[in-house]
Amino acid sequence: MRSTQAYQEIFSSHLSSLGFEKEPIGLYKPISYIIQLEGKRMRPVLSLMACEAVGKDPISALAAATAVELFHNFTLLHDDIMDEATLRRGQQTVHHKWDVNTGILSGDALLVTAYQQLNTYDDFLFSKLTKLLSETALLVCEGQQYDVDFETRDNVSIDEYIHMIRLKTAVLLGCALRMGALVGQASAEIADSLYEFGVNLGIAFQLQDDLLDTFGDPKTFGKKVGGDIIENKKTILYHLTRAHATAKDLADFEKLMSSTPQNEDKKIKEVKSIYELIDARQRAKEQVTTYTKNALDALNQSSLADNQLAYFTAFAEELMLRTK
Amino acid sequence: MRSTQAYQEIFSSHLSSLGFEKEPIGLYKPISYIIQLEGKRMRPVLSLMACEAVGKDPISALAAATAVELFHNFTLLHDDIMDEATLRRGQQTVHHKWDVNTGILSGDALLVTAYQQLNTYDDFLFSKLTKLLSETALLVCEGQQYDVDFETRDNVSIDEYIHMIRLKTAVLLGCALRMGALVGQASAEIADSLYEFGVNLGIAFQLQDDLLDTFGDPKTFGKKVGGDIIENKKTILYHLTRAHATAKDLADFEKLMSSTPQNEDKKIKEVKSIYELIDARQRAKEQVTTYTKNALDALNQSSLADNQLAYFTAFAEELMLRTK
Repeated sequence: MRSTQAYQEIFSSHLSSLGFEKEPIGLYKPISYIIQLEGKRMRPVLSLMACEAVGKDPISALAAATAVELFHNFTLLHDDIMDEATLRRGQQTVHHKWDVNTGILSGDALLVTAYQQLNTYDDFLFSKLTKLLSETALLVCEGQQYDVDFETRDNVSIDEYIHMIRLKTAVLLGCALRMGALVGQASAEIADSLYEFGVNLGIAFQLQDDLLDTFGDPKTFGKKVGGDIIENKKTILYHLTRAHATAKDLADFEKLMSSTPQNEDKKIKEVKSIYELIDARQRAKEQVTTYTKNALDALNQSSLADNQLAYFTAFAEELMLRTK
Repeated sequence: MRSTQAYQEIFSSHLSSLGFEKEPIGLYKPISYIIQLEGKRMRPVLSLMACEAVGKDPISALAAATAVELFHNFTLLHDDIMDEATLRRGQQTVHHKWDVNTGILSGDALLVTAYQQLNTYDDFLFSKLTKLLSETALLVCEGQQYDVDFETRDNVSIDEYIHMIRLKTAVLLGCALRMGALVGQASAEIADSLYEFGVNLGIAFQLQDDLLDTFGDPKTFGKKVGGDIIENKKTILYHLTRAHATAKDLADFEKLMSSTPQNEDKKIKEVKSIYELIDARQRAKEQVTTYTKNALDALNQSSLADNQLAYFTAFAEELMLRTK
């Protein structure tokens, strides 16, 4: 069994070998730029891991892993435009470094390039993987749309919020695992179980992201703790507060969460004190536990052997114990 | 042999049957909106025609034809954002009717939906068609990038301009024809010939578009003749003028073509008088003739029988005799 880091290295070395920079450079340079911003490479690692766990050389899943990672980078590129974000992984976003039109067009070309990664597989596998990529891509677009819609709705339920992150974030983890399983010629039952594992882990991951942003340790978090509060982001903590606060606390909360204060730390402190009042942190942790358990249940109920399960349980633990 | 209109009707009826409107409506409504703006449906007609000409029921090429038409609409949607266009086929553009973020995200979903149209084919055909769509899509993105680059370059040659429209516009016509041929199980030789026909016809078509915009008959053109001049668009007429004008005429021309005048008709008249001086209209017509001839040569040198050729020559004539 390889470590996450070992898979990351296999993947990074493959990615560097691809060479995205070509003419017209105005189109391809931003693609090469965003791909080189080092992320966790979580999705490609899952593809390689799934392929190896079901008994095939992970090298054979490299092209699928790349398709998923490029697709993910495409979503980041276009989402950053929509969110008017200036920074991504500590570096300038594409539309900020270049311009919005460059972001749109290079993003489009990146999506197509993601599809093209699958060209190396035989027709049977190419067909299965491409259809899965399209299906997943459309769900991710739907998730992004719900995220946009929720910004202007004040009656979003916890279930709706979780459905949104399932689409926007989690199905792509499921897709990464299923692709690895398909390349590894796993049974449909195992591919389905790995997909369920990935989707539930993805939900737990995103909820934990929300938690870390507000309650992370400033020493290890890597960026400013409380960023979501400053930006009035509607996270799980926000939705839990809306669902459980008294009318008075809710009025205070809403006022805070529509403000752009001079004193950011004061706002963070005040919002966090309301979170404490309604136990938002604990409630969110319970949701993380629930979805992590769902993820592991999907694995345990599958016909995967213990030595195969070990790959994924180790990954899940690592992911859920992270501090940034 | 069916008329262009007959193919258009088969296609439109298929397209209406698809039903793009579903939840989240904010994502899919703009897709359904742009698809319903009636265009020439030139690309899907070419797919159906190619399939029937090589001996198969055109119905079997409907899904491929739809993929191409949806892809085309995706490019219009994103290009309109980049061009800040407010009108498309006489109706509001998507980003103008909704907003830029909607235009970006619905465009992304539309591109994925284009790919999904091919899902109905068997693995062998699915693989061939999908790879062709990706390859073409990337060329179209490259063409759009060159178009952007050329806006700020003052040394673009005629060859470079034609290479740009080959990528941005013409390869998609080639792709439409090749898809029809592939679905119709034509030989590689015939598929190649139809592709060449389509690409050359596409170049002739775009050059003629440039000509019609400036020299079309106001009675039949449908929109304001001279629009490209008002918007300082770098058409074939612009590039021919740059290539052939004397230094003095060029100075006048450059000044005019970087202005936003009060009196639009005066500007149009003055620019056209420079076009007359350097024979730009005639030179552009010669280019149209050259590429139309290249298109027909590709057909005539192929192993297509006369009754098969008739489909495409009739289409080419119709296209090149258009007044709008």
